[in-house]
Amino acid sequence: MGIPSIGILLHEVIKLMYHARVRDPVFFRIGTCGGIGLECGTVVISEEAVDGMLQPYLELPVLGQMVRRPARLDRMLARELQSLSEPDEPYETVTGRTMCTYDFYEGQGRLDGAFCDFTERDKMDYLNNIHKAGVKNIEMESLSFAALTHHAGIKSAVVCVTIVDRLRGDQVLAPKEVLDEWQQRPRKLVSQYIKRYLTMKGHLSLDGQCGSMCIKSPRRFKLVQQESENYE
Amino acid sequence: MGIPSIGILLHEVIKLMYHARVRDPVFFRIGTCGGIGLECGTVVISEEAVDGMLQPYLELPVLGQMVRRPARLDRMLARELQSLSEPDEPYETVTGRTMCTYDFYEGQGRLDGAFCDFTERDKMDYLNNIHKAGVKNIEMESLSFAALTHHAGIKSAVVCVTIVDRLRGDQVLAPKEVLDEWQQRPRKLVSQYIKRYLTMKGHLSLDGQCGSMCIKSPRRFKLVQQESENYE
Repeated sequence: MGIPSIGILLHEVIKLMYHARVRDPVFFRIGTCGGIGLECGTVVISEEAVDGMLQPYLELPVLGQMVRRPARLDRMLARELQSLSEPDEPYETVTGRTMCTYDFYEGQGRLDGAFCDFTERDKMDYLNNIHKAGVKNIEMESLSFAALTHHAGIKSAVVCVTIVDRLRGDQVLAPKEVLDEWQQRPRKLVSQYIKRYLTMKGHLSLDGQCGSMCIKSPRRFKLVQQESENYE
Repeated sequence: MGIPSIGILLHEVIKLMYHARVRDPVFFRIGTCGGIGLECGTVVISEEAVDGMLQPYLELPVLGQMVRRPARLDRMLARELQSLSEPDEPYETVTGRTMCTYDFYEGQGRLDGAFCDFTERDKMDYLNNIHKAGVKNIEMESLSFAALTHHAGIKSAVVCVTIVDRLRGDQVLAPKEVLDEWQQRPRKLVSQYIKRYLTMKGHLSLDGQCGSMCIKSPRRFKLVQQESENYE
């Protein structure tokens, strides 16, 4: 996907939230990432997003001027999410800095791309340096996600599972079944948060039956759908 | 798609070409774009790609250092492609500079995204300025495409059809049938080039029957497929 694609998605979804008159939405970016010094399967909840130069903002040329938008995420939300992880799980759930790159190969210090303009030692020095700088994981969307949601005043969190430890290698070696299981972890954590949030707001009863979030009037729902289609 | 996605694709395809021992491949990026002062349906063959600051290179952090790669395209190839356009076509085929952005809305000076931090007048001033600077169209992949193919020593061209004239508006208003027809234009032009190239190399006879590019030995083809699968 990457920053340009998530930028388009966010513009569209933020507009949609506005027109749907949604109040105080919370946005989550969930997915996979490369971990730095973490056991595979670890969930990393980002405290902050940085670019490939460790800069904590998104740089975007707008009308020929370079605009810098702070890539801030909600630290309270990050801690709240972490507190929801099951203590008896076989994998950890941690918080930390996330590096967001524009490129999967050279941009993330991989040597298995089409170009190899650096050595294995250069790569390891770099990965160890970003590890020391508090970078827990690398992915390709968090910078734009954090910058645009922060600019829109929307509370947000980035929750990714590590599928490779970059201090040990560049290749994802886990079998598909294991990857599938790991990928469930961010989804489960965010689902836990959503359930708790809806219960707290009275939209979900404690026995798991949905309350006011359900469609109460199928006729009204149909009308809204038709209006929306006409607008298109 | 955007720069990060096309970067991944190019790394993979360049590696693939190498392992398949392909000699002197020619890469094409075809697709749609926003035009600047051009009638919709015009095909733009890029002479050069520039970023949102009109810089003709891709900037990419690699191991914490900013690497600059010239986003050069083959001008001879661009002219050759232009010469293949049918003279009696209802739409033009032009060459020029292509601006490649990391964002579809603000990055391309649109006012219909989630944020409107500039005015219609600011937008028009900007679009007129880039028009004067020779920018014929805006899209989201050419910078990385040009930079990575140039770095790999691969001849390449960017051929896009305009589906909106940004000097007249931000929205794509053409009906689907018209858009589909326009989208055929870059494909047809590149197909013409491929046919001519293969004919010149003796891989395609003049009567349209394929020559040495066809599978001559299905058994051998099956073996190659199996080898490839085993390698995976």
